[in-house]
Amino acid sequence: MNGKSESPAAWQGEKETGRLEAFSDGVFAFAITLLALDVKIPHVAGDLATATSTSLWVGLSNNWPNYLAFATSFFSILIMWVHHHSVFRWVRRLDTTLLFTNGFLLMVVTVVPFPTAVAAEYFETPAASAACAFYAGYFVLVAIAFCLMLAAALRRPLRDPQIPEALVDRFCRSYRIGPFLYLSAVVGSYFSKWIGMGICTALWIFWTAVVRDDTLPPSQDSAI
Amino acid sequence: MNGKSESPAAWQGEKETGRLEAFSDGVFAFAITLLALDVKIPHVAGDLATATSTSLWVGLSNNWPNYLAFATSFFSILIMWVHHHSVFRWVRRLDTTLLFTNGFLLMVVTVVPFPTAVAAEYFETPAASAACAFYAGYFVLVAIAFCLMLAAALRRPLRDPQIPEALVDRFCRSYRIGPFLYLSAVVGSYFSKWIGMGICTALWIFWTAVVRDDTLPPSQDSAI
Amino acid sequence: MNGKSESPAAWQGEKETGRLEAFSDGVFAFAITLLALDVKIPHVAGDLATATSTSLWVGLSNNWPNYLAFATSFFSILIMWVHHHSVFRWVRRLDTTLLFTNGFLLMVVTVVPFPTAVAAEYFETPAASAACAFYAGYFVLVAIAFCLMLAAALRRPLRDPQIPEALVDRFCRSYRIGPFLYLSAVVGSYFSKWIGMGICTALWIFWTAVVRDDTLPPSQDSAI
Amino acid sequence: MNGKSESPAAWQGEKETGRLEAFSDGVFAFAITLLALDVKIPHVAGDLATATSTSLWVGLSNNWPNYLAFATSFFSILIMWVHHHSVFRWVRRLDTTLLFTNGFLLMVVTVVPFPTAVAAEYFETPAASAACAFYAGYFVLVAIAFCLMLAAALRRPLRDPQIPEALVDRFCRSYRIGPFLYLSAVVGSYFSKWIGMGICTALWIFWTAVVRDDTLPPSQDSAI
Repeated sequence: MNGKSESPAAWQGEKETGRLEAFSDGVFAFAITLLALDVKIPHVAGDLATATSTSLWVGLSNNWPNYLAFATSFFSILIMWVHHHSVFRWVRRLDTTLLFTNGFLLMVVTVVPFPTAVAAEYFETPAASAACAFYAGYFVLVAIAFCLMLAAALRRPLRDPQIPEALVDRFCRSYRIGPFLYLSAVVGSYFSKWIGMGICTALWIFWTAVVRDDTLPPSQDSAI
Repeated sequence: MNGKSESPAAWQGEKETGRLEAFSDGVFAFAITLLALDVKIPHVAGDLATATSTSLWVGLSNNWPNYLAFATSFFSILIMWVHHHSVFRWVRRLDTTLLFTNGFLLMVVTVVPFPTAVAAEYFETPAASAACAFYAGYFVLVAIAFCLMLAAALRRPLRDPQIPEALVDRFCRSYRIGPFLYLSAVVGSYFSKWIGMGICTALWIFWTAVVRDDTLPPSQDSAI
Repeated sequence: MNGKSESPAAWQGEKETGRLEAFSDGVFAFAITLLALDVKIPHVAGDLATATSTSLWVGLSNNWPNYLAFATSFFSILIMWVHHHSVFRWVRRLDTTLLFTNGFLLMVVTVVPFPTAVAAEYFETPAASAACAFYAGYFVLVAIAFCLMLAAALRRPLRDPQIPEALVDRFCRSYRIGPFLYLSAVVGSYFSKWIGMGICTALWIFWTAVVRDDTLPPSQDSAI
Repeated sequence: MNGKSESPAAWQGEKETGRLEAFSDGVFAFAITLLALDVKIPHVAGDLATATSTSLWVGLSNNWPNYLAFATSFFSILIMWVHHHSVFRWVRRLDTTLLFTNGFLLMVVTVVPFPTAVAAEYFETPAASAACAFYAGYFVLVAIAFCLMLAAALRRPLRDPQIPEALVDRFCRSYRIGPFLYLSAVVGSYFSKWIGMGICTALWIFWTAVVRDDTLPPSQDSAI
């Protein structure tokens, strides 16, 4: 009887999380797909009718900053989705605080192509260090948004009670230092654009490593 | 045996609601992501090659109405999604009336960036009060669409029979006054654009508070 | 034991249908949301700074063909989604034939705004009857795509075995006459653009009525 | 008791795969819908007001390369979705390697309209063989991305243990020759644009046949 009265509650919690995840997935998926609109056909030198194989290859190769900006934005949003996915494995319930902190996170995620485009467009101009500082500063905001969502999602009534406290603490620690790491990239940008961009790139590798470590224990656990 | 004959029916109802929610989530998620297309790279004064850090920061700051319009539209659609989500927790079955009233709601939601852009573009012109009245008037339509959908969704054969009648009544009351609240903003716009916009902004805070109150009881209930 | 060996098979079938529906929902949802991009801010006569309330209201009202085309396209895709949803309630299994016929249907659905725009743009020109014939002719194609998908989806190994044969037959009959009804609108367009458009409009009402009738029996059934 | 301790693990694995599939479906669905934006209203010769039925039909027919490019891109992404769907029927668990290889696959899929547009635009110019080589070369990349994802997805701890090893091997073999088949199309393009495009077209038929064969055994199996 107790089992029966508990199961609709558990099911209801599940259903709500499912829909928030579906909505978030939708936003991530569209944000990542919209990037492809920026990959444009190269305009070869001269007339279209006189285009030669060589001029087409040159045109396609000269487009490389375009491809690089696309790949960077795509990877940024992908890794944020992987982290989002990794956090929500542990969440069983919802409340409005989580809905709004998650909404704020989605808002900053959809705008990621904007600071990326600013950094790309001004990287070869005298405004490069400001552009890099803006790029890194935007990710300070993203890191704060992740921390807020994480704090809302992993509160005791919402999270899966079976997850050990120690694991949650270890998981949160790397997110909590995120804003400070990006802040150091902002400061670094004023010394050199290469330092600012270097720290940001190193941080993508860091986040990939973090999510890799954190997803390993549960999947080993569930395999036993 | 009774249990077995009921369970496919319950499951079928669940499946149908699930798909309507997924479709609605897709529309909400896409509408909210499309907004990001309007956040544009600032054009600094003079040539790109001579852009300085100062001119880039000035360009980025002068763009603030663009950011504000984006954040407002994003938050409007987000809170409408939270309300939609909050209503559908209580719905177990579907019929064509719900499909079409929900479709009408989705239609008005996807166009929200349009009145927002009209209000933003004309806010500093002599046409400001007409623009604010149009903005508020559009939300009269949105509020009516929400009422229609709510009336269709919470009819007795569709809604979860376990939800107490009193809770449903309290829930519906705040939606029913919605169109009149926005109508007062339309009237207010003719006295001053600040009155019209002030009422609309106050209403966003009202809707956030409403959804917060209404989602609390069930989650406490399911926690016991 | 028989129950246990059957349940994974049933579950697998469920899962596959679920994903096809999710994909189709995604396509319908994006196609319907993309329409909102075409609702544009009106350009008032003269300068923006001298816009008066009157000139803004005139600008907004003159935009009505734009709003009508949006509402028509939105409703067309919505009703097609409702029909798609209504068909898939009865499907339990998948095969590649269904995947490809469904894919062909999605292809013609996403392009619906194209013939709608052609009909809207040429409705006041001497080419009106050709534009209406093109619009009606496009829906001959859509109706054929629906018939192909329906034939693939309701074959005996894929459909829910509990649905009575008579219900399936009645359901299919209205779809089978679809292409011929739209063909009569093509022919009618050559006599007058009003006849062509009138038949097409009447057919939207017909499809709404059809889906309403067909969804009633199962929901009454499951309510008993 | 063993059954109870295993069922949450199984359920968790299911949930995670479900969300990856939903995200992938979103990306596929959105990429396929964006294509419809490229189907444009034809511009008839002369003024809009003097357009005759004949000039409209001529304008609509002259647009055929536009329709063909749309249908080709649509079908390319559809068949890739069918293959993706077909692979994930067999996957029960997730890890970060699968998340990232799947992310890389989605990245190359969303850009498919780009090489298609290059091939379409340069097909009648002297640069045709380079354009076809670029198109075929892009699908070498896509085929490699599919192989990487497949290798990650069908590792023993992730895949459904009930799938016989022989079936997995047969399934993977056709994917493994993919990159080499497209490489032959790259080489063929240098002899003639028709050879390059002919091989690519033949390969779409090949992939349709492959997915058809591979999906048959499990569905027959589950029907017994």
